[in-house]
Amino acid sequence: MRIAILGATGLVGQEMIKTLEDRNFPVTEFIPLASSKSAGRVVEFRGSQFEVKEVSQDVFEGVEIALFSAGADASKKWAPIAVSNGAVVIDNSSAWRMDPEVPLVVPEVNPQDIRQHRGIIANPNCATIQALVALAPLHRRFRLEYFSAVTFQSVSGTGKEALAELDDSISSILKGNTFEPHVYPLPIGFNVLPHIGDIDETGVSEEEWKMLNESRKILHHHRLQVSCTTVRVPVRRGHSEAIVAQFEDQVTLEEAYALLSDASGVVVMSENKYITPLQAAESDFVYVGRLRYDMGLPRALSMWVVSDNLRKGAALNAVQIAELLVSDLGALK
Amino acid sequence: MRIAILGATGLVGQEMIKTLEDRNFPVTEFIPLASSKSAGRVVEFRGSQFEVKEVSQDVFEGVEIALFSAGADASKKWAPIAVSNGAVVIDNSSAWRMDPEVPLVVPEVNPQDIRQHRGIIANPNCATIQALVALAPLHRRFRLEYFSAVTFQSVSGTGKEALAELDDSISSILKGNTFEPHVYPLPIGFNVLPHIGDIDETGVSEEEWKMLNESRKILHHHRLQVSCTTVRVPVRRGHSEAIVAQFEDQVTLEEAYALLSDASGVVVMSENKYITPLQAAESDFVYVGRLRYDMGLPRALSMWVVSDNLRKGAALNAVQIAELLVSDLGALK
Repeated sequence: MRIAILGATGLVGQEMIKTLEDRNFPVTEFIPLASSKSAGRVVEFRGSQFEVKEVSQDVFEGVEIALFSAGADASKKWAPIAVSNGAVVIDNSSAWRMDPEVPLVVPEVNPQDIRQHRGIIANPNCATIQALVALAPLHRRFRLEYFSAVTFQSVSGTGKEALAELDDSISSILKGNTFEPHVYPLPIGFNVLPHIGDIDETGVSEEEWKMLNESRKILHHHRLQVSCTTVRVPVRRGHSEAIVAQFEDQVTLEEAYALLSDASGVVVMSENKYITPLQAAESDFVYVGRLRYDMGLPRALSMWVVSDNLRKGAALNAVQIAELLVSDLGALK
Repeated sequence: MRIAILGATGLVGQEMIKTLEDRNFPVTEFIPLASSKSAGRVVEFRGSQFEVKEVSQDVFEGVEIALFSAGADASKKWAPIAVSNGAVVIDNSSAWRMDPEVPLVVPEVNPQDIRQHRGIIANPNCATIQALVALAPLHRRFRLEYFSAVTFQSVSGTGKEALAELDDSISSILKGNTFEPHVYPLPIGFNVLPHIGDIDETGVSEEEWKMLNESRKILHHHRLQVSCTTVRVPVRRGHSEAIVAQFEDQVTLEEAYALLSDASGVVVMSENKYITPLQAAESDFVYVGRLRYDMGLPRALSMWVVSDNLRKGAALNAVQIAELLVSDLGALK
């Protein structure tokens, strides 16, 4: 396959390259792309060096699959051009996710939806992906009615500059100095920020709307109710989520364990164990820990869900979608 | 008043001393106490130095109010002895909180309960105090039916050694080294740990049970339902809580703002603003931010509640109870 990666020098782009290597994806041609700012830099793929080309009208010619991770504005602009050149775009930004003509896919949850694509397939938001990988196997059996998710999201979700700002803010505060942030509105070191994306006039942040709207779309479940607060924490890599899931049917812990043990992409921890983001970094799995009957709601389970936001939350999910396309060539139109 | 402080060298004990100074508490005699381990050390109070005495049978003689913050085992042992010597004990440990003969008091919420005391008054858990200072004004008007709380609890809640471990773990990880923790089961630097107190066979942690059981007791509301996940985060001081509160009556945001604006000890932030723990450190207030209609539940509000766990979560609440005793001498029996 001739594969282009737009945003090849970013955190997710780099992770996409690594994931293509790790999973031995059938790449015959590798075309790293970026905006003019990063064009000319060199990236490595399978031991060879490639110069990053500037994205342009004709660079997508002959490309079969284009993995995009360059932000919503770049996706809005370049995805239609890539598609008109014959590529299928797997887009990691929020640009196309809620477009009714664009499938929004978590391969473990709704792989069949990729067949509806018209050139663009959207990768869901990192926080949504890991929640649904954990919830979908339970939803299929017990029918999810409501869930609440409070997230502990790592700084790598914001990008490279944010990672540098995390270390800088921590170093400043350790020395007893104050710290003037540039990426976040407030220092992230030794702090937590309940603010991911803009907060609208209803008081809900963009990241919180994504949890609701993307979950409904991916599960094809438009009556699903969701409470959500999304919070940035001083962790480098790996998102954690405290989830309470309430079902229409009576759920049992025994059956939930069994379903999650069999579920693809999930590791369920027994006996009150859990995984922390420091442990989940660079893992492909969604870890479900502290699975228990919820104290407060009937027909409900509580759980602690951790996954690497750059892997399953972004690059891996995108590459898995590409693998579905390859294994089901009809879907490549 | 002749005031003793048991645990005078600990983080909370030190904060109690500072709070007595700041609030100009009428102290005629100041008696700092500790276990044999810390006895002999010197603490300062109002510019004078005091040697910390070892706690013993007769050290409570003549003491009117004893503030305890030396852990549950010390409280179990010494509180009855202090009481038999005529002192009223205000205990910050978990030892007596759920004893039906011991009032569990947040002065803004249930001040009248101190009149029931038989010598011991318990200070609630830090995470419970700030949740209830925010929820009680709304409960009085709309009748709280259910709340969920996911906590982001700072390391100072564990004590001095944990604060040192936070800095050490961060320094190690910044240098690229691994870190062997001693206080926590896993490194706390660049990580989050969903584990505060032991997790029992139902999968619920001690800290989570406290949120449920203490809330019911303080509000005298035994049908109250609570979902809770308590999480330690790499923050030095200040607990944050993402709370969803569902009421029996139809709640309006306008009235909730008005009630919280008038509520004692609360600062409610308007227009989607919020306070982070780094900003709330060393403040006396409970900050309610991001107040909004909940996305998922009817008759429900979401909010972000932050307070300094050493102040309102511990020392200040205890000193406020002492102030109630002083202003209402009948309660000093």
